[in-house]
Amino acid sequence: MEKEASSQTPILDTIKKPSDVQRLRPEDLAPLADEIRRTIIATASVNGGHLAPHLGVVELAIALHHVFDTERDALIWDVGHQCYPHKLLTGRADRIHTVRKKGGLSGYPKPSESPYDAFGVGHSSTSISAGLGMAVARDRLRENRRVIAVIGDGAMTAGMAFEALAHAGHLGTDLLVILNDNRMSISPTVGALSTYFSRLITGGLYTKAREDIATVVKQMLGPHLTRAAQKVEQSVKGLLTPTTLFQELGFKYVGPIDGHDLDTLVEFFHNIKNIHGPVFLHCVTQKGKGYEYAEDDPLTYHGVQAFDIQTGQFKTSGSAPRAKTFTQVFADALIEAAQDDPRIVGITAAMPTGTGLSKFEENFPDRFFDVGICEQHAVTFAAGLAIAGLRPVCAIYSTFLQRAYDQYIHDVCLQNLPVVFAIDRAGAVGEDSPTQQGAFDLTFLRAIPGVTVLAPRDGVDLRLMLHWALKQHGPVAIRYARSLATTIPPEDRPDPLTAQLLREGTDGVFLGVGPCLQQCLTAAEILARDGFSIAVADARAVKPLDADFLERIREMPIVTVEENTLEGGFGSAVMEHYEQNGVLSRVRLKRIGFPDIFIDHATRDEQLQDLGFTPEKLADAMRTFITAEMPTGASAAATPRA
Amino acid sequence: MEKEASSQTPILDTIKKPSDVQRLRPEDLAPLADEIRRTIIATASVNGGHLAPHLGVVELAIALHHVFDTERDALIWDVGHQCYPHKLLTGRADRIHTVRKKGGLSGYPKPSESPYDAFGVGHSSTSISAGLGMAVARDRLRENRRVIAVIGDGAMTAGMAFEALAHAGHLGTDLLVILNDNRMSISPTVGALSTYFSRLITGGLYTKAREDIATVVKQMLGPHLTRAAQKVEQSVKGLLTPTTLFQELGFKYVGPIDGHDLDTLVEFFHNIKNIHGPVFLHCVTQKGKGYEYAEDDPLTYHGVQAFDIQTGQFKTSGSAPRAKTFTQVFADALIEAAQDDPRIVGITAAMPTGTGLSKFEENFPDRFFDVGICEQHAVTFAAGLAIAGLRPVCAIYSTFLQRAYDQYIHDVCLQNLPVVFAIDRAGAVGEDSPTQQGAFDLTFLRAIPGVTVLAPRDGVDLRLMLHWALKQHGPVAIRYARSLATTIPPEDRPDPLTAQLLREGTDGVFLGVGPCLQQCLTAAEILARDGFSIAVADARAVKPLDADFLERIREMPIVTVEENTLEGGFGSAVMEHYEQNGVLSRVRLKRIGFPDIFIDHATRDEQLQDLGFTPEKLADAMRTFITAEMPTGASAAATPRA
Repeated sequence: MEKEASSQTPILDTIKKPSDVQRLRPEDLAPLADEIRRTIIATASVNGGHLAPHLGVVELAIALHHVFDTERDALIWDVGHQCYPHKLLTGRADRIHTVRKKGGLSGYPKPSESPYDAFGVGHSSTSISAGLGMAVARDRLRENRRVIAVIGDGAMTAGMAFEALAHAGHLGTDLLVILNDNRMSISPTVGALSTYFSRLITGGLYTKAREDIATVVKQMLGPHLTRAAQKVEQSVKGLLTPTTLFQELGFKYVGPIDGHDLDTLVEFFHNIKNIHGPVFLHCVTQKGKGYEYAEDDPLTYHGVQAFDIQTGQFKTSGSAPRAKTFTQVFADALIEAAQDDPRIVGITAAMPTGTGLSKFEENFPDRFFDVGICEQHAVTFAAGLAIAGLRPVCAIYSTFLQRAYDQYIHDVCLQNLPVVFAIDRAGAVGEDSPTQQGAFDLTFLRAIPGVTVLAPRDGVDLRLMLHWALKQHGPVAIRYARSLATTIPPEDRPDPLTAQLLREGTDGVFLGVGPCLQQCLTAAEILARDGFSIAVADARAVKPLDADFLERIREMPIVTVEENTLEGGFGSAVMEHYEQNGVLSRVRLKRIGFPDIFIDHATRDEQLQDLGFTPEKLADAMRTFITAEMPTGASAAATPRA
Repeated sequence: MEKEASSQTPILDTIKKPSDVQRLRPEDLAPLADEIRRTIIATASVNGGHLAPHLGVVELAIALHHVFDTERDALIWDVGHQCYPHKLLTGRADRIHTVRKKGGLSGYPKPSESPYDAFGVGHSSTSISAGLGMAVARDRLRENRRVIAVIGDGAMTAGMAFEALAHAGHLGTDLLVILNDNRMSISPTVGALSTYFSRLITGGLYTKAREDIATVVKQMLGPHLTRAAQKVEQSVKGLLTPTTLFQELGFKYVGPIDGHDLDTLVEFFHNIKNIHGPVFLHCVTQKGKGYEYAEDDPLTYHGVQAFDIQTGQFKTSGSAPRAKTFTQVFADALIEAAQDDPRIVGITAAMPTGTGLSKFEENFPDRFFDVGICEQHAVTFAAGLAIAGLRPVCAIYSTFLQRAYDQYIHDVCLQNLPVVFAIDRAGAVGEDSPTQQGAFDLTFLRAIPGVTVLAPRDGVDLRLMLHWALKQHGPVAIRYARSLATTIPPEDRPDPLTAQLLREGTDGVFLGVGPCLQQCLTAAEILARDGFSIAVADARAVKPLDADFLERIREMPIVTVEENTLEGGFGSAVMEHYEQNGVLSRVRLKRIGFPDIFIDHATRDEQLQDLGFTPEKLADAMRTFITAEMPTGASAAATPRA
């Protein structure tokens, strides 16, 4: 035990599974919280990732694992970006330094990683639905386990959470929903629900009615009946138990309680453990709790890159100024466009910083709408804005746009409304979990009639495409990567529906979309050393495709390249084009894209490397392809001239 | 005017535009309601379609067009299956007999059909989002128009409506939301929200508190202070104005009022017309109002086929017993499977009748879950059930599953959970609007890793596939048409992942999925008369494809046939298979499917005819294709032998 005695985390070191937390003495819980906080701060300072959310639930996680039998009970962390305390308490402390790294722990709960991660999460607001399903299954299978869903106030803004609450209230089965109310989701929570939570906390909902009643009673009965009046007042007050929204929906509402007070948490958990039916426990927490920089600025410290613990300063590479990211280019271009056209408005669903729209908000506060974690509403709201004469730009990440697919189809495309979708984080997105990779949008977007789907290779194109999109009469989706938007020459650009040749060649052509065209260009140079003359072309628009350009290149072997699943993506669209033009059997075509698997977390570069998007692998693929196609090809141009 | 004097609808005949309703005398409104009811009943008795919903909002529509300036104000009817009174009042009475017929009026509001259809609808719960967008646009453009959203209590169960309410309450702009509360959406509304509405109507929310207070006050003060006690009681009651959910979210709540009392409606509309900020008017209506059979059984008369007005009897073709529909086969097969496996449960999102699950409910009431119009919750709830050991079957129409795309990806496929999706109304669905056609599911389903996508050609296969699906360890989607499930021989079937040859042939092969294989077989017979030997094969599984089978047929020209968009559908999957196997340029392949347009309403047969799915058109397509491919084809087998 010598080693542990000198450890910075002596209590945490003893915890290998949830029951170890159950067995802790009450007086060990607070020191454990300190150990966990220090571990989380140290981990995030090196690995980056989410920080403030984890710090806000340290006591909650400890108290839950201490009171409940979480080796049997199902504990679901909504969204999951607050799961480090839970991971540390469920036997993963020794691997926490690997979090978000390739092959390491996921930054989110993941059932395949631990039996104590009851449900996989990543997107928000699924926990009550999932928990209710697990509770109903428990009832049917006559099992004896509790189901607990921990959900933030931001996640509660999503309609899906409301749907689940209403269903749970209707069914009436045992289910504990814990609201982790930190007045903050990814950004400060917006909307009427947030105001409502505040009023619950301050007691403002019923305080006024109670005071009014007291006044009335006193006035009417006069001072000589003070005793009776007081009795009446007390009795009437007692009847005025706040009827919360959650009670209306069939839950027992408990709280609000201090989510950092371990004694209170433990006491309340013991008390509500055996209450039957759906229970809603309202906990108030502070995001970033215990790390002063994060407490002061939870937005900045929501998700971080590596930083210095003492100063809170983020570590930058320190090299020469880098190119802008696609996000920054988008933000600047939108502001630029909005200066000329007062009809332009920006909409996001709780992603103002991530989408760059917070910069737009600074410039045009009354033309910016953050609707909360409500992608469905965001898109139909945009459709309403558009049909009534404005030019809305909906900035939503690729993976979250999946939440508004029907609205995209039914409200925007079917009515051919001029909504611009600015789709950030399309393609490989790096350290976040498989839930956050933007792997499917080209397929699901282009399947719908009437939309234009654009995929800029760099910032020059994104700016051009955004300006162009804002002048169209129907929907335009622009999808771009979570990466730098380094210019890929030539800088001159035709209109966005026209493909562009980036490099001449006669033996084959890389036909790509997005920033991976840079790797294609390097691959072409590698192949040039081997004597192959390989062209590189940017399709730019995935829908509609540039038919003339496709006709011009079709004598050459074509290798399509895209950061999207190969199931129905850009390369398939190219094949479809040739098939519909009756020349499929005269075309030699190979597609490179994401394989039919969910992409695990790693850095974006690591992911792209594994997925075959390095210049070397692209060159190999082209070489193999044109070589294999030579015997049956109509053209002899593919003979290496080396 | 002689002609009009003899008309059955003398007042309606004078209405050519909304302002004609505004100008009516108050005493004309009730007779107008009668005329509209008779017209709607007569129309539905011939054309079929929705009936009870329209009858429920006759007075509401009249009063709205009478009080508001609906030539300028935006009136949005949520879902839209209650729009006939509105259509009759906005210049379309003379064309109402064409409703739901090819080239005729749509059964839903459609901006391209009338300037008074402010927003296109079809799916539920979009109206508040769209209305809020229009209200915000009005504010920014400094226009002077009111925005009114009429939404049913069923549609209010969707989370999207809640998202929109919360945002509207937060923004505080002028917006009138009218709750058309008929205790019934497509089916009786379920869940806690419905209970809540009932309590609002009966006043039960506050009555008890008020009564308790009165009792307390009386008891404590005794009979000698009756006057004072009464005063206290009254004052306290006054303070207890019900605080509804809608008020909590920032709306002014008005109601509930009688939605069939024209005087009340007109009075209330005049009163609330100039109230600023978001207003929520709660109207209580009766679905089917004014037609006794529909009043008695609003579920049966929600949507109807042609019927006899006097008896309410539906007109049947009277011919020999027809084959079962896919829906019926599904319901029977699920019941059959559930008898053997107690883990099987059924879930629907307010579609118990349409999906056939109501039959399952009769057999297994405690294993059936109707979650309301909550597709998102339905799917994640199913994921929760599955991860905890049950075998959920989620029965959702193709077009509504678009609402749960992210949940399908994130909660089911990513976790590889054994949820079975029973996807009815896939393909052409007939008279409903373009919003309801199941044109995209093969594309968006197969794009996701890990899922199995099956498409039965008939009832034999659907039954087999459902039983098989319920034994798998991951997600399985089975999509089928809104049609008869007539057996297409042979009746013997291999396992669902194995393609099946339905007819031998050597000159070409129709490779299809779904009931259109019957047309392919007939097309092959037509071609046989011309001397072509055409095979017909059923791929059965769209994902994974039967690789061995595809390898065996690839020497022949292949024509793929599917009721799905050609953008990334089944035919594209076949092309992708050959591309990934490096043989694309050696394959002759043509795809037949839905073109890249939204499909307008008509009968299913008319739609399929227009889309090229008749035997004649399929035969033509095959003939043209194999003839064109002959000069370059490697095989000479396609030479007609006639």
